[in-house]
Amino acid sequence: MRIDVISVIPGFFDSALETGLLAIARKKGHLEVHVHNLHDDGLGSYHAVDDAPFGGGAGMVLRPEPVFACIERLQAEREYDAVIFPTPDAVRFDQKAANRLSRMKNLIILCGHYKALDERVRRTLVSMEFSVGDVVVSGGEIPALFLMDAVVRLIPGVLGDGESALTDSFQGGMLDCAWYTRPPEFRGMKVPDVLLSGHHAKIEQWREQSASQRTREKRPDLSGEEVSEDFE
Amino acid sequence: MRIDVISVIPGFFDSALETGLLAIARKKGHLEVHVHNLHDDGLGSYHAVDDAPFGGGAGMVLRPEPVFACIERLQAEREYDAVIFPTPDAVRFDQKAANRLSRMKNLIILCGHYKALDERVRRTLVSMEFSVGDVVVSGGEIPALFLMDAVVRLIPGVLGDGESALTDSFQGGMLDCAWYTRPPEFRGMKVPDVLLSGHHAKIEQWREQSASQRTREKRPDLSGEEVSEDFE
Repeated sequence: MRIDVISVIPGFFDSALETGLLAIARKKGHLEVHVHNLHDDGLGSYHAVDDAPFGGGAGMVLRPEPVFACIERLQAEREYDAVIFPTPDAVRFDQKAANRLSRMKNLIILCGHYKALDERVRRTLVSMEFSVGDVVVSGGEIPALFLMDAVVRLIPGVLGDGESALTDSFQGGMLDCAWYTRPPEFRGMKVPDVLLSGHHAKIEQWREQSASQRTREKRPDLSGEEVSEDFE
Repeated sequence: MRIDVISVIPGFFDSALETGLLAIARKKGHLEVHVHNLHDDGLGSYHAVDDAPFGGGAGMVLRPEPVFACIERLQAEREYDAVIFPTPDAVRFDQKAANRLSRMKNLIILCGHYKALDERVRRTLVSMEFSVGDVVVSGGEIPALFLMDAVVRLIPGVLGDGESALTDSFQGGMLDCAWYTRPPEFRGMKVPDVLLSGHHAKIEQWREQSASQRTREKRPDLSGEEVSEDFE
């Protein structure tokens, strides 16, 4: 997969691309990331990319010209499956969207900054908009990282076999179950006996109940399997 | 505000702390971030922090000992308002939580990694769990950045007056309106006349309608103001 990221603070991505999952995916040859500085397509001697909003109001708005120039130059070089704009005023990014994006080849992610992006860019150049978390952050850079990580880890070969993404939270419409590792007792807190029993069917059953209960308690809005009894 | 971040890939944060909002907040003296390597509290000569899950299954689980050692050492030095664990199997992080956290002084953010965190740590040391976006990512580092940015930008003085966070999406239970800047016409696409009219009451009305319509179209689940007519 090739991802072109457009940002006014391209240096933001340096260490995130050299550490962790994105670095692994790049080293294994599954991912190529190119970060573009929007100011390179800025206007005038100051390479301006934003201006005050028409109609007044606080904050600055990203102008159309630099964004069009950058994206159209990329699109002249290769075909892109999507131009993604992470923004809080959009549909929620979810696991289904991550699964879908993970099968694509070339993506552009446009990072907003300042108050807003001119609406004309959103209506024409942008093909997908996602809200990553219902909270406002200072720019699209962190949501872009979030999108990239969520998508790239689903590309076959990126994660080792032992880290299969198939049993994650959300993949079955439910949250994950509780997990325990060594030591079996820590400061008087014991791992549930069933997990030490070696009885695979019972362990599986315990995990299903744990996942159901957690989904019901923490995220009743998710379509978790209905369970009629509580369990400890 | 002081934030202590615990991670197995501390280098991930380097450029994010030197660029953008978090760098600005640090320079202005509103934010101090300390990133701790969990491996410094790892076990044995390999500084191990994880082990296989009891009961079997793919992936590794973070052990309790290194996490307890690191967090208890920090807690012995100062009082923390919260130990936050970003995880997909938790309540959603929202603007209300960001507002609340922005009034706190000392926070610890524990970044998960690998398959899971031992449940005993979650039940004892962790005081707040949030899901940032209903999607699984490879670790808690990106959600931690998201949390930090969302919270820090709300601290008075971090953003300039012109970037007031008060009119953001979600702060009024609605998405933001559409925004336009220069040029007034770009490739035949014109800015709505009303925004060029200088008529402040009409502009305000247009923006309210724009926000309502976008909320209704993109996020009908939000408690946006009900509007009976469409508008262009």
